[in-house]
Amino acid sequence: MASKETLIVDCDTGIDDALALLYLLRDPDVDICAVTTVFGNIDADTAASNTLRVLELAGRADVPVAIGARRSWTGNAHFAPYVHGDDGLGNTDLPAPTAAPTSEPAAELIARRARENPGVLHLLAVGPLTNLATALQLDPELPELIKHVTIMGGAVRHPGNATPAAEANISNDPEAARMVLAAGWPVTLVPLDATMTERITQDHQRRLREFGTPITAFAAKILDQYFGFYEQNVFGDRSAACHDPLAAAIAVGDVIPALAPVVSVDVDTGDGPGRGATVADVRGQYRDFPAQDGAHVRVVLETGGNFADLLADRLCDAPAPSRRVA
Amino acid sequence: MASKETLIVDCDTGIDDALALLYLLRDPDVDICAVTTVFGNIDADTAASNTLRVLELAGRADVPVAIGARRSWTGNAHFAPYVHGDDGLGNTDLPAPTAAPTSEPAAELIARRARENPGVLHLLAVGPLTNLATALQLDPELPELIKHVTIMGGAVRHPGNATPAAEANISNDPEAARMVLAAGWPVTLVPLDATMTERITQDHQRRLREFGTPITAFAAKILDQYFGFYEQNVFGDRSAACHDPLAAAIAVGDVIPALAPVVSVDVDTGDGPGRGATVADVRGQYRDFPAQDGAHVRVVLETGGNFADLLADRLCDAPAPSRRVA
Repeated sequence: MASKETLIVDCDTGIDDALALLYLLRDPDVDICAVTTVFGNIDADTAASNTLRVLELAGRADVPVAIGARRSWTGNAHFAPYVHGDDGLGNTDLPAPTAAPTSEPAAELIARRARENPGVLHLLAVGPLTNLATALQLDPELPELIKHVTIMGGAVRHPGNATPAAEANISNDPEAARMVLAAGWPVTLVPLDATMTERITQDHQRRLREFGTPITAFAAKILDQYFGFYEQNVFGDRSAACHDPLAAAIAVGDVIPALAPVVSVDVDTGDGPGRGATVADVRGQYRDFPAQDGAHVRVVLETGGNFADLLADRLCDAPAPSRRVA
Repeated sequence: MASKETLIVDCDTGIDDALALLYLLRDPDVDICAVTTVFGNIDADTAASNTLRVLELAGRADVPVAIGARRSWTGNAHFAPYVHGDDGLGNTDLPAPTAAPTSEPAAELIARRARENPGVLHLLAVGPLTNLATALQLDPELPELIKHVTIMGGAVRHPGNATPAAEANISNDPEAARMVLAAGWPVTLVPLDATMTERITQDHQRRLREFGTPITAFAAKILDQYFGFYEQNVFGDRSAACHDPLAAAIAVGDVIPALAPVVSVDVDTGDGPGRGATVADVRGQYRDFPAQDGAHVRVVLETGGNFADLLADRLCDAPAPSRRVA
């Protein structure tokens, strides 16, 4: 059976990045050909180490991991230990990885693999977009070589989370995000409008804990840190948004968005209160979003609201990966 | 009986400005002590002439009208004849006014009246905020002299209308809006989030036309131009948003907002795609909007959705103004 998608996952692992990776790794029909890391939730080196830990937990030490950008296009790097824990994975002490990252930097890996497999690769970016912007600089023809780009990031009719206007992935590198969204490839943007409506709860956590495999026990454990942040700062109860896992599920076709118009999207790269905002033209919302000349970004505004059930199902019930076992 | 409010209405008359004025003028308990005009829907001089026409239609030629800013803080002036007609009032040929504007400029009138009546005046601003910003420059103590400021403007969780991010009143003078929202007076901001949900329809128009007074016939007539714009560009049917009348009704307490948190609001005054956006911090939306230090702007996010009924009731059924008849 042909795989659903051949992915390079670009991430800043991170609690929800880990859940997204596990979600994808539990599907034998998804081919993750590499993971690249970027600063964001945590520094890029720790993100690579965390990614290797998660891959080994899932029995997939064979997937290459490449370290990418350690700071943004303008030289900044901001991490979020208050969200993801000091180690980026809820301080859960997974064993140190046995494998090491590749020596090839992330952007070079992306550009090389795209050139070797024209029209095949799907880039799933769930961190700041610095690696993708760098890859575009390395190979201006990259947009023609990539099948699709799915991005977790931005906020359209929903408030930001890093600032009142900006979502964290975009806020961490607005200049890179602007380049990536302006490039001529087909993009699906999964902003907070969708991810904040897909909430994983204590019921899901209990189910994961009780199922009791190493993967589900780990997933339940990292949610403790995540729920703590969300309870105090966002939702007021012990639940959390499924940011990166939702983008992963949309990328591989498991979740079909309920509302996802193709509209023009720009990023605010100024120094004002809107810096990092994704300015999407959704003025057509009352008229079923008439076509916009030149628009090539599909913006997911609504999904069904029960994705966390699917996430828990996948971690608990899906067969172990069958194609490649380390 | 004491008046509900003593208002200075600052406007760019304008179809919905005219409806807001008529709505207020039909309430004998509301005291409009002056109207000031600003560029926006139309130039400031025509806005004054249109205001005088509307006042005379309502038998209130006694209300002084002062002309204000003819361009924005940065020297620009953009009009909207495609929305409001070449004359700003749907090309309906109301008779030329018999009265003339005052020689006193708008900002000076606002500052003088505020000084003469400390703690009494409610400023209702339904155009670009240039006159209010100028009045603040004339008298830095103005915020302590004004009872309240109600502004139709901005967009928070709703797209803009002038640009994807910015509503027209704020977009027309972001620098002025930023000053006005930063000043230390209590402000109620009525953005598109609320006004776009309060729609006046062909049923209301029919009722106004059939009621057959000069006021209701005029109101029905100007809606033709407005419906034409909204049908083609916004809603796809012959209805329109009650922008300025809703702000008027909120200012005098006729409409109590369903959701109106007090939050910090800044305005994007940069040159990027977010220029003119009202960046309001509504990240507390999942936790009943916890208090924010220093916030003094009440942002109306939701109203009941049936305000156009009240607007039509008022124009058709309310007694004629009793206190002062010209």
